[in-house]
Amino acid sequence: MSTAEEQTLARVALTWLTEPGTWSVYHLVDRLGPVTALDLLLDGGAPDEQLRATVAARSAGGDARAVAAEAVTRTERLGARIVSPGDDEWPARVDHLRRLRLPDAQRRVDTQTAPPLCFWVRGCWPLAEAFDRSVAVVGARAATGYGTHVATELGYGLADRDWTVVSGGAFGIDAAAHRGALTAGGLTVAVLACGVDRPYPMGNAALFDRIADTGLLVSEWMPGADPLRPRFLIRNRVIAAGTLGTVLVEAAARSGATQTTHRAIALGRPGMVVPGPVTSAMSVGAHELLREYPKARVVTGVAHVLEEVGRIGGDLAPVPRGPQRPVDLLDDDTRSVLESMPRRGVVGVDVLAARAGVAVRTTLRKLSMLEEMALVVRREKGYALASPPTRRSSRDGS
Amino acid sequence: MSTAEEQTLARVALTWLTEPGTWSVYHLVDRLGPVTALDLLLDGGAPDEQLRATVAARSAGGDARAVAAEAVTRTERLGARIVSPGDDEWPARVDHLRRLRLPDAQRRVDTQTAPPLCFWVRGCWPLAEAFDRSVAVVGARAATGYGTHVATELGYGLADRDWTVVSGGAFGIDAAAHRGALTAGGLTVAVLACGVDRPYPMGNAALFDRIADTGLLVSEWMPGADPLRPRFLIRNRVIAAGTLGTVLVEAAARSGATQTTHRAIALGRPGMVVPGPVTSAMSVGAHELLREYPKARVVTGVAHVLEEVGRIGGDLAPVPRGPQRPVDLLDDDTRSVLESMPRRGVVGVDVLAARAGVAVRTTLRKLSMLEEMALVVRREKGYALASPPTRRSSRDGS
Repeated sequence: MSTAEEQTLARVALTWLTEPGTWSVYHLVDRLGPVTALDLLLDGGAPDEQLRATVAARSAGGDARAVAAEAVTRTERLGARIVSPGDDEWPARVDHLRRLRLPDAQRRVDTQTAPPLCFWVRGCWPLAEAFDRSVAVVGARAATGYGTHVATELGYGLADRDWTVVSGGAFGIDAAAHRGALTAGGLTVAVLACGVDRPYPMGNAALFDRIADTGLLVSEWMPGADPLRPRFLIRNRVIAAGTLGTVLVEAAARSGATQTTHRAIALGRPGMVVPGPVTSAMSVGAHELLREYPKARVVTGVAHVLEEVGRIGGDLAPVPRGPQRPVDLLDDDTRSVLESMPRRGVVGVDVLAARAGVAVRTTLRKLSMLEEMALVVRREKGYALASPPTRRSSRDGS
Repeated sequence: MSTAEEQTLARVALTWLTEPGTWSVYHLVDRLGPVTALDLLLDGGAPDEQLRATVAARSAGGDARAVAAEAVTRTERLGARIVSPGDDEWPARVDHLRRLRLPDAQRRVDTQTAPPLCFWVRGCWPLAEAFDRSVAVVGARAATGYGTHVATELGYGLADRDWTVVSGGAFGIDAAAHRGALTAGGLTVAVLACGVDRPYPMGNAALFDRIADTGLLVSEWMPGADPLRPRFLIRNRVIAAGTLGTVLVEAAARSGATQTTHRAIALGRPGMVVPGPVTSAMSVGAHELLREYPKARVVTGVAHVLEEVGRIGGDLAPVPRGPQRPVDLLDDDTRSVLESMPRRGVVGVDVLAARAGVAVRTTLRKLSMLEEMALVVRREKGYALASPPTRRSSRDGS
């Protein structure tokens, strides 16, 4: 049996040898484990001609195992981490990509949609927790004032209700959604198409710094990796699969953001579209999507988004998590109170009771209990969550 | 057997006694004919208590037969006409209201949706022809610049492709749609909720004059009738049923225009919605409709509208028409050429051939044939339709 370190190293080498999403590699890893799969590929034993050629071409540029070892060192030096399937903080929902099939897929990016082999993560939150209650907000880079306004409001409103806002860190709609979430003091995740050490675009550097401080920068590519054009489209499947639903704010005809929304719909997640003026070129893609996909839903604000993801959230809720956590043992009221706590900052008892839909007296009783369990802490003006309950353990596990 | 005049008089009296749409009256007329139905009602023989009370209350204000006789005289003096079922120009499609059932209907206006008993019409075109290839464009009175722009473009574009633009003559979206159609030299129909002699609102008086000159003013209410508030909603079912589809451009939450679109959908017609900025109160109703009715379709321009009504137009095409007309005897190419003629103005042979999708030589041959049949006339720069082929006969029949 190989060690966890060997397995991680093999996964890193495999993501370097072939682009993420390649089904044949994913299936090999699934069957043989990453270490044996890597050995097989490097020995020229790839199951198909194309993969053999790809591996040979990459290997000509360096030794995969050495590259991987260097990447691991570089990751540690950065203060980033590598998260693999089986780790506590692995976001189980991205494995639903196993069942993603896009009818009429022709292009590589549409046929090669396997789950990721591993993630690079920068930021403190456990990845799985960050994605747990998350919504993607995506859209055009060349957004209009209208789109930027709407995306900011959505980002703010979702974060304010303790949903994580996931996007791609691009100019325009992506940046507006991240910024809205940050303004609300909420959690936001940028899923990148390049290394987490050099997030693209450079013009959003200050934004990326803020995201890394309070949220997460996530990538399937190792530090130093370039944001090659196809990678944005490869990356989009993770945004769609990692979240409970995707909201498209503005998109020109046939844009990358509409592709993310397609993937969400194909995965059975809500694909939500904010309409716009029909006179705006930046809403053409959004309206096209509404016309082409009967399952795409019109949303005009946070309330509509929550209506959609709330429903699907209920359906998908019992994501299998390894060990039982104290939270799993709570009664309904206590759990409501705990789940209504803001991720960051302090909340007054009255507000909390109203949010949780639990009587104030009961809320107070449950809060003392939660305090005893070290899940919340009392502050001057109310209560706050204790430092993320599983953060320490998750990081130890990665 | 009563004469046509007696029947018309009875229908007029019946529309005065009870508001249009009342099922019990419609069923009585259906079973007994209008003359006997009127006799029965005036003798206190209404089949239900409520109808008896309504008839009694109205009759206290005057003699129904005398009121009707006066209305007929007044109609003639106006140069208007009364069109009844069975007349050549009766728009058969409104009788599809027979099968309109609105689930969960509570209010009178939603339960009493029977087909009209008769129409008052001002304008030269035969009513049935005007409605034949028609689309409703409806929306908010307090429209924004955006909505007005879109409605004008739609009105223009539809009229330019020889579709009749039907609307309600109100301020805002309705007026913009009518104006767009008039600008294109096309046919437009205002379906009113008051007498055709005093179209409401007064502020649109100049517009109504232009519509009466080149299109039609239509109403279920006799000359002199007031635009009472509930009548707008009663009227809406005719807009929805008379056209091949309804386009909603802008609407505030729960507005009358969304109600017209509901009715179109309930009748199995395309209910089309132009989205708008989610930041605009004037698009809230439009987006609500898209969210509530999965069958509502997003449209962003004329091409989308034609896609929808073209399809349904094909389905519904063989509307039963009494006597066979010369046009019914034409071969496909000739009919294409004839149907591609603009309703107004002259068209060059090349343009006509392209529109009809028929070779220029063939088009020329078919045009001579049509000229011989007195259906088209040759002009200096091309061909024009002869004065409306069935206008004379239809008016004789009314």
